[in-house]
Amino acid sequence: MAFPSPLCPLLGIDFPLIQAPMAGGATTPALVAAISQAGALGSLAAALLSPEAIGPQCAAIRALTARPFAVNLFVLDAPRVDEAAIALALEALAPLHAELGIAPPESPARWCQPFAEQLDALIAARPAVASFTFGMLDKDQIERLHAAGVTVIGTATHLAEGEAWVAAGADAVCAQGAEAGGHRGTFIGDERDALIGTLPLVSQLAASLPVPVIAAGGLMDGRDIAACLALGAAGAQLGTAFLRCPESGVSALWKTKLAEAGDTATRLTRAFSGRYARGLSNAYMERLAGLEARLPAYPVMNALTGPMRAAAAEQGRADLLSLWAGQGAAKSRALPAAELVATLKAETLKTGEAK
Amino acid sequence: MAFPSPLCPLLGIDFPLIQAPMAGGATTPALVAAISQAGALGSLAAALLSPEAIGPQCAAIRALTARPFAVNLFVLDAPRVDEAAIALALEALAPLHAELGIAPPESPARWCQPFAEQLDALIAARPAVASFTFGMLDKDQIERLHAAGVTVIGTATHLAEGEAWVAAGADAVCAQGAEAGGHRGTFIGDERDALIGTLPLVSQLAASLPVPVIAAGGLMDGRDIAACLALGAAGAQLGTAFLRCPESGVSALWKTKLAEAGDTATRLTRAFSGRYARGLSNAYMERLAGLEARLPAYPVMNALTGPMRAAAAEQGRADLLSLWAGQGAAKSRALPAAELVATLKAETLKTGEAK
Repeated sequence: MAFPSPLCPLLGIDFPLIQAPMAGGATTPALVAAISQAGALGSLAAALLSPEAIGPQCAAIRALTARPFAVNLFVLDAPRVDEAAIALALEALAPLHAELGIAPPESPARWCQPFAEQLDALIAARPAVASFTFGMLDKDQIERLHAAGVTVIGTATHLAEGEAWVAAGADAVCAQGAEAGGHRGTFIGDERDALIGTLPLVSQLAASLPVPVIAAGGLMDGRDIAACLALGAAGAQLGTAFLRCPESGVSALWKTKLAEAGDTATRLTRAFSGRYARGLSNAYMERLAGLEARLPAYPVMNALTGPMRAAAAEQGRADLLSLWAGQGAAKSRALPAAELVATLKAETLKTGEAK
Repeated sequence: MAFPSPLCPLLGIDFPLIQAPMAGGATTPALVAAISQAGALGSLAAALLSPEAIGPQCAAIRALTARPFAVNLFVLDAPRVDEAAIALALEALAPLHAELGIAPPESPARWCQPFAEQLDALIAARPAVASFTFGMLDKDQIERLHAAGVTVIGTATHLAEGEAWVAAGADAVCAQGAEAGGHRGTFIGDERDALIGTLPLVSQLAASLPVPVIAAGGLMDGRDIAACLALGAAGAQLGTAFLRCPESGVSALWKTKLAEAGDTATRLTRAFSGRYARGLSNAYMERLAGLEARLPAYPVMNALTGPMRAAAAEQGRADLLSLWAGQGAAKSRALPAAELVATLKAETLKTGEAK
């Protein structure tokens, strides 16, 4: 029986739970498919994929499940290339490159994947749902998605962003609280003003927006989901909760660090990517903390730290890795994805009954 | 009929709602008494009161209600006086003193009220409840409070602080999420690691601590309270929600700015007091943002900005005032306190039934 939420018929799911798109390698076709097959909505993080890779990844998911799934992209403007900021970043990274025994990065042919072509590839692949972060689609883009039968979820970190998505035609809004792991989705106003906690953010957006609101940020168990439903959310999006699933593609090192994480383990940093993101605190974050305001903006800084992060992953150097995680990290579980979905559903129902 | 929460018999209240102590002048005897009389728990913020003033304030509350109320103190160590930091602060403040036409502050005879004497005065006044922030009491102090019939609430911003309060003998723990207005209560570890959102903080503490947990931070209406009860909280503490009550002692200017606040109106700053606190963003916060890490710690910076804030209040200069407020500020209401308590209770019950 489907859970009573407008999100279930909208997304074609049984329980209003979305696995958050996580562009750090977690969202393998196996993870996405297992979650969708269990009655929730898996999400493929396609932001860092080339346009050519998006179709095959969707096909790989479809080989495992006939249920709906989502594909997520970052909506990015043309990169702002600030040579002075790049020089500052390379100077700060130089001793780390030396330590890892790698060459400093050359300026790449492009700083990120081309968004327009990614969007074309997404529309051609026709997933049931597409979700977007970092920026806004225009009305024409949303109409193209709708014409292809794709339901659109926009990400908002405050009310004005949610209202902008609704005005452009989004079918649902994901409210990303400050507790969320990974990158902040803020695209209107100063990032520092948009660090609103999940509870007040969801409370405000659910009361103000005429479309279903999906709660995100620091949610780990069924009690957390039930609390968001009490706030008026139509459903919940969990990311960190799925990172330790065996189907998740993140490294064994990342999973170990998550398993060890305490409740004060995360911080926000711009030092890895040039955009605020939350991850497990480490020496790299602390080392670059004083420079954060002057580093290149996303995606430039993200590209510049790519070689360092790749080498650090190979060499098992957690002190130099971006180990994205939300503020609920201490409560992560290493269950198979389908079992975790079933557990989350049972916990949510139990909390609802206890009220 | 009392609401089914262990907090009701523990605190002698009908509905598990606490009005947060707010040391900015809000907690007049009229406000505290109106809230207690309505079946919730009013709290007198006594941290900035002299020991001699605490007894008479409690008497003024008792003249208005026979119901239980709380008194709150900051647990402070001897101030750390860093002359270089003081010189830096005075240099930054000098143009503002000139602009306001006031003399720069002299080093005061003492930087804050004497805590030991405040605690003696509190115990002599025997309120039903005492709550504490900024630090820990020792076991002897808690035993003295218990011997006087006073129930003890400690404030925690992460799990280790909650466990410390339980080990020392506290009867309940208030979990202060990062959304909370006013000063952060953090006393173990780095303040930056302890900015945990209300939702994951309450979820974690309620699951881990053997005493009732009170949720605080960004809570404004009955839906928010119901969500915290779903998380396992025994009750909720709201501050900003009561600031605009006619009984609240904050200035008309502060109330006006709160009424105008949007959902992105607040930031955390150390610039007013030397300790992280959340308030309505203004020009002063922005002006001193670059210096924050080097300013004197609380209470020294708080004392140094006292004359500026007093003059700014007189001259109607909201750009220089510490207008403490939580992240739910946009949802504040100007209802009489008793009516607000009744409304919050009705909203909470309604949300519970809708589940």
